Amino acid sequence: MDEEEIGRETSRLEAFSDGVFAIAITLLILNIKVPGKDIGDGKLWEVLGQQWADYLAYVISFVTILVMWSAHHNIFRYIRRTDHPFLLINGLLLMGVTIVPFPTSLLATHFSQENNARAAAAVYSGTFLFIALCFNALWVYASYKDRLLDKTQDVSSLQGIAWAYIAGPILYLLALILSFFSLWTTVIICILLTIFYSLPSLVNRT
Amino acid sequence: MDEEEIGRETSRLEAFSDGVFAIAITLLILNIKVPGKDIGDGKLWEVLGQQWADYLAYVISFVTILVMWSAHHNIFRYIRRTDHPFLLINGLLLMGVTIVPFPTSLLATHFSQENNARAAAAVYSGTFLFIALCFNALWVYASYKDRLLDKTQDVSSLQGIAWAYIAGPILYLLALILSFFSLWTTVIICILLTIFYSLPSLVNRT
Amino acid sequence: MDEEEIGRETSRLEAFSDGVFAIAITLLILNIKVPGKDIGDGKLWEVLGQQWADYLAYVISFVTILVMWSAHHNIFRYIRRTDHPFLLINGLLLMGVTIVPFPTSLLATHFSQENNARAAAAVYSGTFLFIALCFNALWVYASYKDRLLDKTQDVSSLQGIAWAYIAGPILYLLALILSFFSLWTTVIICILLTIFYSLPSLVNRT
Amino acid sequence: MDEEEIGRETSRLEAFSDGVFAIAITLLILNIKVPGKDIGDGKLWEVLGQQWADYLAYVISFVTILVMWSAHHNIFRYIRRTDHPFLLINGLLLMGVTIVPFPTSLLATHFSQENNARAAAAVYSGTFLFIALCFNALWVYASYKDRLLDKTQDVSSLQGIAWAYIAGPILYLLALILSFFSLWTTVIICILLTIFYSLPSLVNRT
Repeated sequence: MDEEEIGRETSRLEAFSDGVFAIAITLLILNIKVPGKDIGDGKLWEVLGQQWADYLAYVISFVTILVMWSAHHNIFRYIRRTDHPFLLINGLLLMGVTIVPFPTSLLATHFSQENNARAAAAVYSGTFLFIALCFNALWVYASYKDRLLDKTQDVSSLQGIAWAYIAGPILYLLALILSFFSLWTTVIICILLTIFYSLPSLVNRT
Repeated sequence: MDEEEIGRETSRLEAFSDGVFAIAITLLILNIKVPGKDIGDGKLWEVLGQQWADYLAYVISFVTILVMWSAHHNIFRYIRRTDHPFLLINGLLLMGVTIVPFPTSLLATHFSQENNARAAAAVYSGTFLFIALCFNALWVYASYKDRLLDKTQDVSSLQGIAWAYIAGPILYLLALILSFFSLWTTVIICILLTIFYSLPSLVNRT
Repeated sequence: MDEEEIGRETSRLEAFSDGVFAIAITLLILNIKVPGKDIGDGKLWEVLGQQWADYLAYVISFVTILVMWSAHHNIFRYIRRTDHPFLLINGLLLMGVTIVPFPTSLLATHFSQENNARAAAAVYSGTFLFIALCFNALWVYASYKDRLLDKTQDVSSLQGIAWAYIAGPILYLLALILSFFSLWTTVIICILLTIFYSLPSLVNRT
Repeated sequence: MDEEEIGRETSRLEAFSDGVFAIAITLLILNIKVPGKDIGDGKLWEVLGQQWADYLAYVISFVTILVMWSAHHNIFRYIRRTDHPFLLINGLLLMGVTIVPFPTSLLATHFSQENNARAAAAVYSGTFLFIALCFNALWVYASYKDRLLDKTQDVSSLQGIAWAYIAGPILYLLALILSFFSLWTTVIICILLTIFYSLPSLVNRT
């Protein structure tokens, strides 16, 4: 294959991934229903206010998936080839991403009931654990002996990516275990990790 | 990075943005329900007529998001590079765009009840204010010291873009404030601004 | 602008259009509901059979939009540039395309009731009239004085496109008028026109 | 047409196909509803557990469509040109793919009731038979006298693709016939075939 064909090959994987990311990131907007005319005049602010958990879930889910898309985008800057196992690992990652809106909405809905909130936090951190494992598998598979990498890239930034990705599953596993004891510890670990992955740092080359 | 890789980089951001725009622009079609067989023969025109607010909301939401897509498309003609903060600002803009169908439908649904209509108009103009701020942030970030711009572009048209974008948030803020006093003033300002941004002018190079 | 940038420009318009086409073409699958467990064992074939109108509407809507996508694809083989009015005309065309599933489902649902069926056929042929007018506007705008065309293309095939597009609105308008008198005439004209536009002929260069 | 234009032509067909694949692969996530606050504290695990059939259907549907996307991707590595009949055959294949979530959910929902399960298995294997026929038609049409193929590709791998695709419809037809006698035989044949097509083998060049 010549250079141009190689570009086409990763392009198509990226285009398909972008389509799935675009659907996942907008899924929770379907949960936000327009209140009907029968609520009575002057009541709209109040009725909209009662939907706060749905708004919050949408914003959190959107920002979280945006950070994941950005990390995916960054990994693919180093990828020059694809092969069949790589397509399947990327597919599992995409499946994880499309699930994110569900536990986000679950946690926002059940946050005020203690036992249900802990169950929702377990599902939430478990989803992130799965996604972090997929990101690791994707990166390890691509970078093992430079299998699918562009060899002209800077080696030190690759090491930085590797460390940042190894930390993910360990901390999300911790968050998952802690969800059976403390809701807030789990939520705070997840928020801090999302902020960490959103920073223009090792994983997000400026 | 060589020239080709730079092209790929903005391409992917555009492709993801296009996916989100495509979903946002079609969202309200889901509100238009096919009347069931049980309405009685000869009643279809009447039943369809009662859905006028849903049709109107769809057309307005579609045209509004089309104008935003066109402005986004136009900005990206000047962009040659992306970096991590730019991805996040663009993401916030996309979140604003996906919200547009909701306040549009809200306004169409509650237009006939005075207090609810003003509340809906406040949400409507507030959404546009948020989007106008995101467009400004995107443009200021990209054009500051020509950070992400293609330097071969015409400078005077860039100045035109800057002025057109600075006017947006100020006028949408005015529309938001006026929504507490007069529904029609807010609606007319929003319509005029959408028409202004849809014209083949400074923001839309022919 | 150099050649590469020109390619990028139409690419993005095509990508956005493809996203909207992809959503429109799959919309009616949302109407097909999986029957619940409570229907009783041995009843599944019967219950599925009762959904025939939804299946038929999906297939017809899918094939119709596929033919439109193919015509859109074919037009864009001749387009080398875009400008702002062209983006807006293309947007109106896309709005028409996203509406197609609605009248298709309307016609399939109300086919057995005489008056409602004629009303649905009027909405159906009216939608196609609107789309045919948009296709004409798109083509006339692009081809007037070769404004946006690739000048290296064969002139005679362009003439063929023009004739095929001029016929569309006239015949759909006829179908719309006849829907007030005869359901079947309207349906047959619409079917024949869809078949005509799906043939590898003047509009679909092989 | 020069080389670059040829690339653009298949690119757009791939982009549209990717959009439809992305929608199809995420369709069943809409079936997974977030349980409301009124289920009572401490009941969330139990309520989530009752949704197992929906989770299973989502995972199976996602993985199945991922394997189909991968096969589609692989075929298009050999395609260099498109023509009008090829667009239509590809469209029929896409229609088949968008249907997959429906029989998958049907089978998961009705698995425990003997007669309904066999009916669902017939619909399931029938859908796969249709898709396998479309894949064959796509490949036979493109490869007949090298009509649309890239002539620089390895001939022996093309032969492998042909054999793997001929086997599909025969085995899915067998699965369809057997569904009237034995649920499990049908399900096992379908699972084995999905695994076969997911392997990095003749159909999935590594």
